[in-house]
Amino acid sequence: MHDHGTDMDAFQKERERLNEVVMSYAGMPIKRFYSLDAQAYREGALPVGTKEMLGLVASLVLRCDDCIKYHILRCHEEGISDEQLVEALTIGLIVGGSITVPHMRRALDAWDSLKNGRGKAKAERSRK
Amino acid sequence: MHDHGTDMDAFQKERERLNEVVMSYAGMPIKRFYSLDAQAYREGALPVGTKEMLGLVASLVLRCDDCIKYHILRCHEEGISDEQLVEALTIGLIVGGSITVPHMRRALDAWDSLKNGRGKAKAERSRK
Amino acid sequence: MHDHGTDMDAFQKERERLNEVVMSYAGMPIKRFYSLDAQAYREGALPVGTKEMLGLVASLVLRCDDCIKYHILRCHEEGISDEQLVEALTIGLIVGGSITVPHMRRALDAWDSLKNGRGKAKAERSRK
Amino acid sequence: MHDHGTDMDAFQKERERLNEVVMSYAGMPIKRFYSLDAQAYREGALPVGTKEMLGLVASLVLRCDDCIKYHILRCHEEGISDEQLVEALTIGLIVGGSITVPHMRRALDAWDSLKNGRGKAKAERSRK
Amino acid sequence: MHDHGTDMDAFQKERERLNEVVMSYAGMPIKRFYSLDAQAYREGALPVGTKEMLGLVASLVLRCDDCIKYHILRCHEEGISDEQLVEALTIGLIVGGSITVPHMRRALDAWDSLKNGRGKAKAERSRK
Amino acid sequence: MHDHGTDMDAFQKERERLNEVVMSYAGMPIKRFYSLDAQAYREGALPVGTKEMLGLVASLVLRCDDCIKYHILRCHEEGISDEQLVEALTIGLIVGGSITVPHMRRALDAWDSLKNGRGKAKAERSRK
Repeated sequence: MHDHGTDMDAFQKERERLNEVVMSYAGMPIKRFYSLDAQAYREGALPVGTKEMLGLVASLVLRCDDCIKYHILRCHEEGISDEQLVEALTIGLIVGGSITVPHMRRALDAWDSLKNGRGKAKAERSRK
Repeated sequence: MHDHGTDMDAFQKERERLNEVVMSYAGMPIKRFYSLDAQAYREGALPVGTKEMLGLVASLVLRCDDCIKYHILRCHEEGISDEQLVEALTIGLIVGGSITVPHMRRALDAWDSLKNGRGKAKAERSRK
Repeated sequence: MHDHGTDMDAFQKERERLNEVVMSYAGMPIKRFYSLDAQAYREGALPVGTKEMLGLVASLVLRCDDCIKYHILRCHEEGISDEQLVEALTIGLIVGGSITVPHMRRALDAWDSLKNGRGKAKAERSRK
Repeated sequence: MHDHGTDMDAFQKERERLNEVVMSYAGMPIKRFYSLDAQAYREGALPVGTKEMLGLVASLVLRCDDCIKYHILRCHEEGISDEQLVEALTIGLIVGGSITVPHMRRALDAWDSLKNGRGKAKAERSRK
Repeated sequence: MHDHGTDMDAFQKERERLNEVVMSYAGMPIKRFYSLDAQAYREGALPVGTKEMLGLVASLVLRCDDCIKYHILRCHEEGISDEQLVEALTIGLIVGGSITVPHMRRALDAWDSLKNGRGKAKAERSRK
Repeated sequence: MHDHGTDMDAFQKERERLNEVVMSYAGMPIKRFYSLDAQAYREGALPVGTKEMLGLVASLVLRCDDCIKYHILRCHEEGISDEQLVEALTIGLIVGGSITVPHMRRALDAWDSLKNGRGKAKAERSRK
């Protein structure tokens, strides 16, 4: 019913379409900002996974669903574990308060869907 | 056409599904936060209705539609009157400015829909 | 596929419906706020187009999609050029950071759609 | 050492001086906003004390120390009890998270100081 | 008593000292961000004065006193008139609400001080 | 001239005094929130240092100077290196934009001061 894998594909596709629109209008500063943004998340003194969790928590407390979804995808690609992700989100929840709860819910739903039906939530539900 | 009663049911159902996903991943701190959140709105020196209006105005100025919808539901259950609700929203609007207007619109639309077609907006429209 | 002209019409129509709901509940302060809001954007020492760009950038950094869409419409009506719009959005992006990117994307997509298929993005895509 | 009564007087005096500066520059819309702001907190379907608590919680979650201090003063004038004030602040804390803690601290310090040395905090300290 | 000219000098001096601290730690991305920031406010399709007002209104609604003070200085250097400045601040006030009032007060106080005792506020006071 | 070591001591002392004020008024929910807050930063699947950087970046993008100062202190105690700290702050800067710059400046100034005059900024200045 909730075919999240497909949701994530649609999210990525729409994101690409919109970035094309941006690039067709962008002057030099916007292009430089995009490149700077990519640079900030590259491996350095901190591993990429940690940087993606930093981006995720910043996005959670600022409550931007698109940004959260993107960093959830990247955390998944970087092999962040369930426990690490939940601890990062917990810090966002405590810092940002209950106003972040709807975003945390969607973050964990996206995370769960990336596991393609092998996620905890589905297993839990099937046990009921 | 705008079958809001159904919208509110769908909102509640999706909220429950997502809370299940959260609980399947949550460690102790997230569970404690949920319980603390419930505790803060219980009857005390302030009546529950006042607390729900405090939660509503906080959600309006922070501009979280899901949080607003939830407190609108709770204010309705607690028997807050139209006049009380509008005065609370007015304070949110003045504190938070025109950036809160789209959220105030949806707040009043949800409120109107909870009256199931017996709301002011519908009556007003039928007079035209 | 992305019939944005229609999207903008639907956006305007829903906005009107919701404003009617607001007005059916509003007391004097909400009505006065609406009138004050209109007054602030009228021609004065600053031209209307500049005021709409100020409203657009304020809406971008506060990340309100409905407000952004409205000011995009108004900027278009006031004859703001592509270059002026992009420079205004760039300031919003630099002040507000990457968290504004998803909103800037949708802003430029709405702008592009207002040109009804004669916009840059479509031309660009057709060249590929 | 912490002569807060004097602090509150200085706060009020500086606030008045700055409002005079604003009024010397303000056009009609700013003057109307000030009058609308006053109007929103007047007795209506909700008592003034409740409205001041709504303003306080909105100011806490938006984290504006000056606004918080002003509503603390007004809540004190309206005879809000310690228990009511703490319950209102608790909702702000839960909604807004730990980022509101430094502001809640200063809110309660201002509240304590309004009791002019007869407050709980002083008594507590003298017992140590 | 309020020797704001000196305040503005002190503000500029501390800002420079802190920027030196930043530069002593900064890697390439921070340096690039600083340069991008400068680039965004340069003359283009929009005049520099308009860009500074865009930066000012963005800073007002996000409520950053340091950023506001900086753009007030720049607006003054660019020859923005009292009327233009007040109209820009009015849009920030309406979009951002009463939570921006303490910041608008300080913005106008800084503006008034830049006129070095020849400002409106002082004249007004001397008439009383 | 800038005796930051002393500043940090004064910051800690005032923080303790204010927490005493809070505790003298706090009911159960505030006490539980404080304990939950402490719990969220404890060693788990993520090391304490990483959690403190998550708290720092969340505080930077939400622009709370007191929160930033506290996490700067904790990052220092946990042995975070200059390079790690700067990379974490860079992500906050890119996500949150130039509005975070004044806070990043003060963050790095506090960091520099914790090194007690043996910091980079001082060395840099002495070379001039």
